[in-house]
Amino acid sequence: MSEMENIVSLITNSGEILKKSYYRSFSYNEKGKADLVSETDLEIEDFLINGLKAIDADCSIYSEESGEAVNVGKHRWLIDPIDGTANFIFGVPYFNISVSLEAEGNIVEAYVYSPVSEELYFTGRNDEASYLNGETIRVSETCRISDSLVVFGFSANFENIKKYYEDWRTIFVNCRKGMGLLSPALNICNVARGRTDCFIDFGSSMEGHAGAALILRKAGGICMNYDGSLWDHARKGVVACSPGIVNFLR
Amino acid sequence: MSEMENIVSLITNSGEILKKSYYRSFSYNEKGKADLVSETDLEIEDFLINGLKAIDADCSIYSEESGEAVNVGKHRWLIDPIDGTANFIFGVPYFNISVSLEAEGNIVEAYVYSPVSEELYFTGRNDEASYLNGETIRVSETCRISDSLVVFGFSANFENIKKYYEDWRTIFVNCRKGMGLLSPALNICNVARGRTDCFIDFGSSMEGHAGAALILRKAGGICMNYDGSLWDHARKGVVACSPGIVNFLR
Repeated sequence: MSEMENIVSLITNSGEILKKSYYRSFSYNEKGKADLVSETDLEIEDFLINGLKAIDADCSIYSEESGEAVNVGKHRWLIDPIDGTANFIFGVPYFNISVSLEAEGNIVEAYVYSPVSEELYFTGRNDEASYLNGETIRVSETCRISDSLVVFGFSANFENIKKYYEDWRTIFVNCRKGMGLLSPALNICNVARGRTDCFIDFGSSMEGHAGAALILRKAGGICMNYDGSLWDHARKGVVACSPGIVNFLR
Repeated sequence: MSEMENIVSLITNSGEILKKSYYRSFSYNEKGKADLVSETDLEIEDFLINGLKAIDADCSIYSEESGEAVNVGKHRWLIDPIDGTANFIFGVPYFNISVSLEAEGNIVEAYVYSPVSEELYFTGRNDEASYLNGETIRVSETCRISDSLVVFGFSANFENIKKYYEDWRTIFVNCRKGMGLLSPALNICNVARGRTDCFIDFGSSMEGHAGAALILRKAGGICMNYDGSLWDHARKGVVACSPGIVNFLR
């Protein structure tokens, strides 16, 4: 197997663990729920770290859970064991495992896997395109705000929602349909496959958005920092969109 | 096969159609997306109506799409071919097919099927409990607002969000975590299985919430109209919760 095939198999195997934990009954108290999630988070993280070390011995690894987990090489793997934890807890099968490779400061390879729907988004070092379960994906051709489907990264937090409403009122009010959805990597990948047209999040983190942003760009989409400046995956926040609507956003 | 087995098989077969349509590529313009959804909605509706007529010849049928579709008998089936259409469109696998039986004004049998996660919630005429894929479910034992997971039925519509914030500020601010999630039937079923503690929606419709409300009540939960009055499935809106937190809501 090639290194990439090994990594795909590592991620889909991690997905099986994640899926099993998701389906496990949740009929107990809150403490139990939180414990189950952090247990699962750590279990997936361990599984990924050990797997990556076996496949790529001289790498560094940065994880959402433990930060700089291994630090031995110039290139490093960024991992987010569960992107979309709140959905996982609330019983919404919209969460993913995100793994990407950073080399000399750039993301060069990315994997986003949604285990319940068994959708693997991917782009490799030498690819000029991005793929969903092996098929090429492209952003939408939407070019009017009134046609656009827009996602904001919010839950039921009124201060956050007000901030989006103030920062992006024109989009918020005039898009065809807006939704508040957590799970940044999947929100970006849904723009990449042309299912939605725009995703705006002031709080997304490197491990959650870096890989998906590469997938989006290779699918013809555009990524900016939340303030509209040139994309830097190490900064918090993201604006991801198809080219037809980018001019409405700056 | 018993009538109930026939209906389960009808619904899971409808789910296969719905799942296929969901996975189909969405990389085209908005018009295409809307068309695909309404096509799928009508296709599932047809499939369910024809199936129900074959299983239960002297029934009436009321559907979300076409209203009173068949009107021949005293008891009627209520069907919602896709509850959670916006999730379906946005690429969030959190939508369901909802079918319930109304006899002499009461809901007596209910099926809620989430096809991507293959979760079938169910309760039959003679059951004292509710089931998820055959296993008994129960509401949570949460009894503090600060521990509660609460769902509100909103997308990114600022007026709607403000209304929930004004009507339920204590809950909105003090719950452990709140989320805006569409798909009323699944939101109610997630309370029924103890995954979340409360769901509040001023706009849910009969076809979307009636069956799930019966599932919730047989799992030990409580349903009220949005204004706190005695549950009437024919009215718009719902408050669904576990018994431990009901006193915080009235």
